[in-house]
Amino acid sequence: MPLPSRVKIVEVSPRDGLQNEKEFVPTDIKVELVDRLSAAGFPNVEAASFVSPKWVPQMADGAEVMGRIARRPGTIYSVLTPNLKGLEGALAAKADEIVIFGAASEAFSQKNINCSIAESIARFEPVAEAARAAGLRVRGSISCALGCPYQGEVAIDSVVDVARRFQALGCDEIDVADTIGVGTPRRVREVMSAVSAIVDPARLSGHFHDTYGQALANILAALETGITIFHSSVSGLGGCPYAKGATGNVATEDVLYMLRGLDIDTGVDFDAVVDIGQWMAANLNRKGSSRAGNAIAAKRQA
Amino acid sequence: MPLPSRVKIVEVSPRDGLQNEKEFVPTDIKVELVDRLSAAGFPNVEAASFVSPKWVPQMADGAEVMGRIARRPGTIYSVLTPNLKGLEGALAAKADEIVIFGAASEAFSQKNINCSIAESIARFEPVAEAARAAGLRVRGSISCALGCPYQGEVAIDSVVDVARRFQALGCDEIDVADTIGVGTPRRVREVMSAVSAIVDPARLSGHFHDTYGQALANILAALETGITIFHSSVSGLGGCPYAKGATGNVATEDVLYMLRGLDIDTGVDFDAVVDIGQWMAANLNRKGSSRAGNAIAAKRQA
Repeated sequence: MPLPSRVKIVEVSPRDGLQNEKEFVPTDIKVELVDRLSAAGFPNVEAASFVSPKWVPQMADGAEVMGRIARRPGTIYSVLTPNLKGLEGALAAKADEIVIFGAASEAFSQKNINCSIAESIARFEPVAEAARAAGLRVRGSISCALGCPYQGEVAIDSVVDVARRFQALGCDEIDVADTIGVGTPRRVREVMSAVSAIVDPARLSGHFHDTYGQALANILAALETGITIFHSSVSGLGGCPYAKGATGNVATEDVLYMLRGLDIDTGVDFDAVVDIGQWMAANLNRKGSSRAGNAIAAKRQA
Repeated sequence: MPLPSRVKIVEVSPRDGLQNEKEFVPTDIKVELVDRLSAAGFPNVEAASFVSPKWVPQMADGAEVMGRIARRPGTIYSVLTPNLKGLEGALAAKADEIVIFGAASEAFSQKNINCSIAESIARFEPVAEAARAAGLRVRGSISCALGCPYQGEVAIDSVVDVARRFQALGCDEIDVADTIGVGTPRRVREVMSAVSAIVDPARLSGHFHDTYGQALANILAALETGITIFHSSVSGLGGCPYAKGATGNVATEDVLYMLRGLDIDTGVDFDAVVDIGQWMAANLNRKGSSRAGNAIAAKRQA
């Protein structure tokens, strides 16, 4: 399949990234991060989570972040909503899109939220319905789509089944998420092709973690399967909860560098993103996790 | 093109890797590294360099390394030879293969060795001839094949021209080397296809640095073009001389992880390689640069 000429990048660092940081990142920094990302041209920023602060203290300031950011016309600001209470927060915060989620792994679903996959998604029915009634977009994220920290392999049929359930809930976009980064290109092709058979590929996105260094090769494989939406996190913000010190989300800089080389347009200002990545790494007192970002920053200093 | 079922990995860490380390690595460690790599099943190990210790002090102990390693039957031990003096060292050390080299960038050739590309390769003529007469394999490495730190872009015709010159010298294998890691998959495909038109692709290898995080995607693209030989360095040993602190050679663990996922056989013991990578990183007092290696090591400790 010929590669697409344009791709949408969803910047997930403010939510999926910072949620996996050990330290609480100050609200001021979060607000500045979201604003710099939207200014850099990202069409979609995953900005906050309306989940209980008891479970995810890093995201406790979601309402304040959403209240203080400078809304850029046209940018979609997404927030994670685990339940109706989360949706209330999302509505009050004037989010553009909510994110609901479910694992493709039965073992993960049981261990993580103590119920079956089917049950976990059925619980989102009133959330999705109310969100759509209020005019919000709904995105469904399929975690463990390429593997599970508990059961290991995940059947492609399970991923397709979760996609079908999200589709039935009226999701505008569905993420195939390799949340532990174990996937490799052939499997990515197989999973994306299988899901594309029931969901319009224009509404499918690839969410890859770089834990095993495979994310860019997986994005290339997904591009070749016709996928045109990808998630990434500036400077690779966020770690991996299943392997301490390991890499989490693929770094936006690395993705943009590859896409530029493939002549694929994203509408995003690459140099601005390198700056944001280096600024965030400095805020977190560490070296960034983007290889392209670090190489360019090193060259600038030379 | 369907992916190959088998790929040859050339482990370059003892030479290309350690040459770019700031500190001198003790001879004992080098010998153990080469022996552990051959024992892990690598069919080809780039073991040493016979270059003036004035220029590359890190490689000053090449003769001793070659004298002390335990030769594994069938393993090809390669050494870098910049000139006839280097070849004498290679012959005395009973190397199986010599590596000669030339940049595809005129600017690099002039800056680095003060002569034209054509001249730089012509100088290797007596070296290649004597090596072949002595029954050694000859490998020609085309550096700056995807870009140059001085002139930036490198024309595909230049790469093809250097390949033709190496071919004329009787090279058994020719490396297309992205020595600064700037390449992206589309360009890799174009370059590999162009060189494949004049060199049997079975004798072409891809040497990718991961400086911009692109190496695995580039290997995937090269595999799809019919390339079946790749270079890598355990734990990503070796840095990038043009961007301080940036990543150098692609990490062997990341490559093997991807190839395993693609069902491509290498004959290499993956777990042994993860051990070697962690051991070398500990020797160098730092965290390894292989994402797959670090993730697996972290999981083992969990």
